[in-house]
Amino acid sequence: MKALRFDDTLKFEKDVPVVKREGEALIEVLCAGICNTDLEIVKGYAGFRGILGHEFVGRVVEAPDNAWKGMRVVGEINVGCQVCALCKAGDARHCTNRTVLGIKDRAGAFAEYLSLPLHNLIALPASIADEEAVFIEPLAAACQILEQLEIHSTSKVAVIGDGKLAQLIIRALAHTKCSLTAIGKHKDKLDLVDGISKHSILIENTADILYEVSRQINSEKFDVVIEASGSATGLPLALGIVKARGKIVLKTTFKGNAQLDLSQAVVNEIQIIGSRCGRFEPAIKLLKDQSVDVRPLITEKLPFDEGLRAVEKAAAANSMKIILQMSAAS
Amino acid sequence: MKALRFDDTLKFEKDVPVVKREGEALIEVLCAGICNTDLEIVKGYAGFRGILGHEFVGRVVEAPDNAWKGMRVVGEINVGCQVCALCKAGDARHCTNRTVLGIKDRAGAFAEYLSLPLHNLIALPASIADEEAVFIEPLAAACQILEQLEIHSTSKVAVIGDGKLAQLIIRALAHTKCSLTAIGKHKDKLDLVDGISKHSILIENTADILYEVSRQINSEKFDVVIEASGSATGLPLALGIVKARGKIVLKTTFKGNAQLDLSQAVVNEIQIIGSRCGRFEPAIKLLKDQSVDVRPLITEKLPFDEGLRAVEKAAAANSMKIILQMSAAS
Repeated sequence: MKALRFDDTLKFEKDVPVVKREGEALIEVLCAGICNTDLEIVKGYAGFRGILGHEFVGRVVEAPDNAWKGMRVVGEINVGCQVCALCKAGDARHCTNRTVLGIKDRAGAFAEYLSLPLHNLIALPASIADEEAVFIEPLAAACQILEQLEIHSTSKVAVIGDGKLAQLIIRALAHTKCSLTAIGKHKDKLDLVDGISKHSILIENTADILYEVSRQINSEKFDVVIEASGSATGLPLALGIVKARGKIVLKTTFKGNAQLDLSQAVVNEIQIIGSRCGRFEPAIKLLKDQSVDVRPLITEKLPFDEGLRAVEKAAAANSMKIILQMSAAS
Repeated sequence: MKALRFDDTLKFEKDVPVVKREGEALIEVLCAGICNTDLEIVKGYAGFRGILGHEFVGRVVEAPDNAWKGMRVVGEINVGCQVCALCKAGDARHCTNRTVLGIKDRAGAFAEYLSLPLHNLIALPASIADEEAVFIEPLAAACQILEQLEIHSTSKVAVIGDGKLAQLIIRALAHTKCSLTAIGKHKDKLDLVDGISKHSILIENTADILYEVSRQINSEKFDVVIEASGSATGLPLALGIVKARGKIVLKTTFKGNAQLDLSQAVVNEIQIIGSRCGRFEPAIKLLKDQSVDVRPLITEKLPFDEGLRAVEKAAAANSMKIILQMSAAS
């Protein structure tokens, strides 16, 4: 089959063997989304080697239970060992022996076929189009924030970042009716949250981001700051604009170290909350109810044969979601 | 009066004017403890200039309310503006306009006299000796952890650090009956928690601390890690030994930046909780009930005239608490 493999360099290969792991389902990939994590892996993050990709929608081709055959599905990307205490408590996402689709010890979704256990799959309502369904995994990661902390209509929240994940976070949080400020460096991307976030702040002076933002908010600080910039400058900014006893949700992962003065987190008793993947159900509900519209975030859909060009496009500063179409039908 | 003043260099001065702020009480300092924060300020932390010191016990000499005169007191070190929303909600500790004894815009306790508002003072039971009372402020900071997160008898907790604050934290947490591991670099200091913590780990290979500790704990991770090492290496170690979805309490403040890869905090959904000062009452109760014995932590008591030498001694690697005695009687 065709696949996009990373092995020190990223290659589009045409003769990769189809692998269905024992006891798992084989899924024909219809569409896949390119995520910043994929781009970070290509830079060395997570040390992964193999077929990239973890945002997908597909159709079940083979399954241990025949009832699944032909179903259109999305898939939870973490596969636990099923025997450890965490897996038994239902938390395969943190199983230390887990494999993760296209991220850790498991071939990913930038391929014509992938293998996942049945219990990772969720059948999709017909009302959710393929191009929307590829957003379910990152939208679930956005919704996870609301499972980790309470955000009310009276909460003052800032989201740092205007990229793909930040955009989904803003859309997911908007439903809490909280006072929401989007902070980003790209006018065209901030324009996409017009009418969704209450305020938006364009950072023009990147030499002193904290000064620039503090000036624009009149030093009025936030109860909660979501750091989804994907950049090392995000957390220092978050620490500078969060209230004493406030909370910072950390979504950014990247290759490398950040230079941080965490003394202010101690002095101001800030909580920094790491946040990764989320349950798919809340994300599916948001799409099914048309409570979140992800289509404005699609920059381009490209045929899978143009996979390498698609990854290049995804890395461009002005790109939002790039979708790979594996089958002509999707 | 005599005072230890920091003004780019630390000086012992003999003719510093006594200042009683309007509406406040004047307190004769009996004893004061030297804290790592004092040592960090001398290195440039917090940008403070003036009389150092914030751990003290004293006697009220003048007060707006005569009933306080002659009372032996300790004092909450944060003085709020009394008018902002935080102060009105009873949280002067986070008032953005606060002054802090010997740390921010307020002359400290390494002096014969200091000034504090009456509402900052707490009268001391006679059963608590002066040399114990100087530990109330840092012991309150240790107890604050238990106000920020729940630690149960089933919690597996590690404390990184074997210095003054770490020692108090271990003693305060021991009352939860949690499984407690002390991690430090000094055998003599770890010996002080024998019988208080369940385990202790001596770091001998400082070149690869995480490897050394992981080996000794058989990679069994902790529910909660308290970072009180006072060093930039503490948080990376904490991130390496805390369980997925675990909590790190950050107590360390120091001058400078740490080099941190926080991606693992995101992937493992770790919470990092900044923790500073605490209410004095729980600390006073622990001392009054003789539930915590702080006397083994006293390295030396020195007359105030030897203040400069005392600060030097406090900075020595083998030192624990150095106490300054302002009056011959104490």
